[in-house]
Amino acid sequence: MKASVPASQVKNDDLFSQAAEEVLQFVHFGPVFRRLSQRLDLQIRFILEIDKLKTIIRRTYLLNTDRAENTAEHSWHLAIMAMLLAEHANEPVNVSRVVKMVLIHDIVEIDAGDTYFYDTAAAADKADRERTAADRLFGMLPPDQGAEFRELWEEFEGRRTPEARFAGALDRFMPQLHNYHTQGRSWNEHGITIDRVLERNECIGDGSTRLWECARALLDDAVSKGFLKKPGRD
Amino acid sequence: MKASVPASQVKNDDLFSQAAEEVLQFVHFGPVFRRLSQRLDLQIRFILEIDKLKTIIRRTYLLNTDRAENTAEHSWHLAIMAMLLAEHANEPVNVSRVVKMVLIHDIVEIDAGDTYFYDTAAAADKADRERTAADRLFGMLPPDQGAEFRELWEEFEGRRTPEARFAGALDRFMPQLHNYHTQGRSWNEHGITIDRVLERNECIGDGSTRLWECARALLDDAVSKGFLKKPGRD
Repeated sequence: MKASVPASQVKNDDLFSQAAEEVLQFVHFGPVFRRLSQRLDLQIRFILEIDKLKTIIRRTYLLNTDRAENTAEHSWHLAIMAMLLAEHANEPVNVSRVVKMVLIHDIVEIDAGDTYFYDTAAAADKADRERTAADRLFGMLPPDQGAEFRELWEEFEGRRTPEARFAGALDRFMPQLHNYHTQGRSWNEHGITIDRVLERNECIGDGSTRLWECARALLDDAVSKGFLKKPGRD
Repeated sequence: MKASVPASQVKNDDLFSQAAEEVLQFVHFGPVFRRLSQRLDLQIRFILEIDKLKTIIRRTYLLNTDRAENTAEHSWHLAIMAMLLAEHANEPVNVSRVVKMVLIHDIVEIDAGDTYFYDTAAAADKADRERTAADRLFGMLPPDQGAEFRELWEEFEGRRTPEARFAGALDRFMPQLHNYHTQGRSWNEHGITIDRVLERNECIGDGSTRLWECARALLDDAVSKGFLKKPGRD
């Protein structure tokens, strides 16, 4: 198992992308934007850059169509979950901060790729890859906004605040729902067994005991239905 | 031009979807969730239901790959824009409220489909279709949260608060960026000319004079480059 190829290497249509790249060059350095402030120009460059997050493919499958999810739509889904499920957090949380945190938590994947959650080999250099990505991507923004995004991302990664623990719980809870409701498709494709799922997701309980109880009920049922295997069984 | 087909009619893999539907039935009414509160059950049903927003296809194309955008990833992108561009709003705005508003503003498209912005025929019954969709979708939530989401959506649609005007401006500004940076692809596919773009998007200025100036500069340049046609010319 390897981390996904970064977006820059998975363009479906190189000619199209090349044309788009040329246009981008022109706009940013051409006469059109001369009268716009440098600040707005930096903001718009970043907004255009993160369009790439829509091309980063995760291992989870959608419920209503036969394709895998991308990271941009995953981030949207987590933000709605944050709005709805905050009452189940173990500690009171600032919901707006959780929403912002999950919206930006995976932007680094534009450069670092999506590291599969159960891929221990790729996990080894994940932190380094993502830090380098954060340097480049958040570094594109005006300094104050780059610092704000960086801080939100570091907070999410650190899991040291109630908001970060709850955001992390949502990020791990959602794939259980997707996996269960696609009959364990991604678990089975990657040979993931119940012991690993329990071990890797136990920290859901750090953010929300309630959601961890719910996940465990789903996982027990997934095993009983054969969606999720026990170790050492085919 | 017609509104998109609702997600329920565009399933790529009917067998797969049918299986998923059966699983959903079981989970919600089966023994697994008996010990979960009805409230959490309603929240999770809604969270699963809105996965469908990832299958609603818009008319705008992504910048880095040759496919159209879906509404879930569009909503994510607008939320990040809200975080970054709020300083350009004409009036001070509550950024967190704008973020939440754009995250949920298009959920109604799950039932009502994406109505193409320049499709005057489909616009005629858009409000009715979307209101019916809002009744069903927000009605799935616990009443207090359904009311909160409904209120955010009504506020967005009404454009009567600074937050709603700015959110509306972002929603109309973004497609100009996508269109420009894909050499007018969607404009040209649908025969849209500069006069219609200006007329339909002028209200960007109600939320942000700055972003409307920026859009006009882009549109002028799009015309000069031939990405966007003048009326009556082929």
